[in-house]
Amino acid sequence: MSVLITGIGELTTNTGAALTDAALVIDGERIAWVGSAAGAPDADERVDVEGRAVLPGWVDSHTHLVFAGDRTAEFTARMAGQAYSAGGIATTVEATRAASDDVLAAGLRKHVDEAVAQGTTCIETKTGYGLTVEDERRSAIVAASLADEVTFLGAHLVPPGWDADDYVALVCGDMLDALAPHVRWADVFCETGAFDEGQSRAVLTAAASRGLGLRVHGNQLGEGPGVRLAVELGAASVDHCTYLSESDVDALAGSGTVATLLPATDLSTRQALPPARRLLDAGATVALASNCNPGSSYTSSMAFCVATAVLQMRMSVEEAVAAATLGGAKALRRDDVGVVREGARADLHVLDAPSATHLAYRPGVPLTWAVWRRGTRVTRA
Amino acid sequence: MSVLITGIGELTTNTGAALTDAALVIDGERIAWVGSAAGAPDADERVDVEGRAVLPGWVDSHTHLVFAGDRTAEFTARMAGQAYSAGGIATTVEATRAASDDVLAAGLRKHVDEAVAQGTTCIETKTGYGLTVEDERRSAIVAASLADEVTFLGAHLVPPGWDADDYVALVCGDMLDALAPHVRWADVFCETGAFDEGQSRAVLTAAASRGLGLRVHGNQLGEGPGVRLAVELGAASVDHCTYLSESDVDALAGSGTVATLLPATDLSTRQALPPARRLLDAGATVALASNCNPGSSYTSSMAFCVATAVLQMRMSVEEAVAAATLGGAKALRRDDVGVVREGARADLHVLDAPSATHLAYRPGVPLTWAVWRRGTRVTRA
Ligand SMILES: [Zn+2]
Ligand SMILES: [Zn+2]
Repeated sequence: MSVLITGIGELTTNTGAALTDAALVIDGERIAWVGSAAGAPDADERVDVEGRAVLPGWVDSHTHLVFAGDRTAEFTARMAGQAYSAGGIATTVEATRAASDDVLAAGLRKHVDEAVAQGTTCIETKTGYGLTVEDERRSAIVAASLADEVTFLGAHLVPPGWDADDYVALVCGDMLDALAPHVRWADVFCETGAFDEGQSRAVLTAAASRGLGLRVHGNQLGEGPGVRLAVELGAASVDHCTYLSESDVDALAGSGTVATLLPATDLSTRQALPPARRLLDAGATVALASNCNPGSSYTSSMAFCVATAVLQMRMSVEEAVAAATLGGAKALRRDDVGVVREGARADLHVLDAPSATHLAYRPGVPLTWAVWRRGTRVTRA
Repeated sequence: MSVLITGIGELTTNTGAALTDAALVIDGERIAWVGSAAGAPDADERVDVEGRAVLPGWVDSHTHLVFAGDRTAEFTARMAGQAYSAGGIATTVEATRAASDDVLAAGLRKHVDEAVAQGTTCIETKTGYGLTVEDERRSAIVAASLADEVTFLGAHLVPPGWDADDYVALVCGDMLDALAPHVRWADVFCETGAFDEGQSRAVLTAAASRGLGLRVHGNQLGEGPGVRLAVELGAASVDHCTYLSESDVDALAGSGTVATLLPATDLSTRQALPPARRLLDAGATVALASNCNPGSSYTSSMAFCVATAVLQMRMSVEEAVAAATLGGAKALRRDDVGVVREGARADLHVLDAPSATHLAYRPGVPLTWAVWRRGTRVTRA
């Protein structure tokens, strides 16, 4: 089954190719052909997008969607400037442990479907609300059933009742044994109040020794060792990067580690936005992701992240769109998504607008007109 | 034809009424009954919203949607930090003058439909891109055919080739004669570079003498006389209010003039956000509106404005939602919209979420599930 898409008003390829009167052919799960419409091959079906913009689907390289429970009241209190003693990740951990696999899978499916309906075609998600060997293991299995990429985040926080070093030993031992078969990535929350540099290093080196790729949560709440450690250990990505020293920026620029910015989180926690301009000007690779989770950032809207990056972080539209597609792909060390080229996954996002600029020019307006994920057209919810 | 709506998870009434297990009945264009489901009367049809939140539809009290032409390139250049000599309102004026009534009406319809699909059920729009007697007159007639409220904004800018005082004389004379039968409101852009205090006063007093209600664009680019003048002349609203002195805040707090904040504009022009907290703490009435227009703020998303107000202007969710519904109604001096009570217009917004908090908790996620406008259910586009 092949589909020829014509009438493309603006095609974002992320390959450097600039096409006029662009067309493309999807064949099965892959893009089979990209070129000018005049030279297009035949296909089983033809879709005229009537001047609309076509982009690679969003690559959301950072979410936490295997969870149960509700934290709306905590958010409301934070926005009203009130203290809220019962809040925090521990609330979600408790609810997640109490939830069946089916409940966790249904929640994940709902959130993934919602993201896909908004143009996200490749999505990473994490464990990290189980924090026991068994709850982390089943979280990973649920995640792998629906997400494109799964990350083990046993080192999300020290669970109540545990000594930090004892918990790190569990994460590096039995937990990693149980999780490694089900995940591609391991991650650690390297931050004051979570895991310190030594603990983070222990988790990451243990994970690397099992062949897992590395990711780091770091520099969210202040400057710290997260970025340095991520670069030193060759992590694919260090995520948040809200507070960066000059040497952090330089280290990222000289590395293969992507700086993944999560601006919806910084807004939802009412802190400063990350220094995208400094990173880009230094030559670092930047990704944008949602960090969708029920505590610090409960949005699945990559368009919102792109609009925020352009309007408030001084990224150009082109930079922000690239960061939310190709940048996410690099953060996941994939070359089959985040691009429109022959052989790439047929992950396409058609906007009800003539150009990708409208994502920032028209913030908040739902612009997704059609989505193809792995060659299958997804209708908007 | 009556409809009973049940299963309401949270009902925002804006009347002070707090109902548990709320239900309501629409009859024709009006709300016929609001109460607890146990006491609900019969109706021709029944809709169970299954725990979703119900709000009054958004009252978008400030838009500029009678226009033609495209200013995407100007926006792109601004976001890339580049100069763009051809930009500005004059571009839109030229295109609007050249457009037929049908083209203007089609553009307006597209934007109104888009807004309604996102929960806006009462919408104001303005002239101001014609700037000749005839182009302003036909703009007003087009506006009145589709918008709930129409404002004459002949004093939007001094058109190219005119002396400012000569143009003000035209606005106060022939233009007002031609427009007064078609509009309820008159407005002036009182700002350095547009109209000064004396010119603004001339326009507003001439309009008041014809029985038009007054609105003012003021204090957008810096402190200035706009707020003072609006309060002195009893304007229904002064819009933008980004830069306010202490005496401006005090004047608003002691007046019947609403402070209408347009945060999407401040973001789209990369300037500071308006001081909502100062206004609210002083006791001023605050409205939120989109200012949807192709130059400085091309969004129709009231949800984006609400999310921005909560996340970045320190308004609580309750304050922001009230400002975007009841506040807009007050800015238009209407008591039949922006509330859910017996006798009010049946303008309802049902979210695909259990509470209005999700508008800020989940920024950018399209949450509109159903909209009734004047009692007619509008399906999302
Ligand atoms: Zn995270
Ligand atoms: Zn305006």
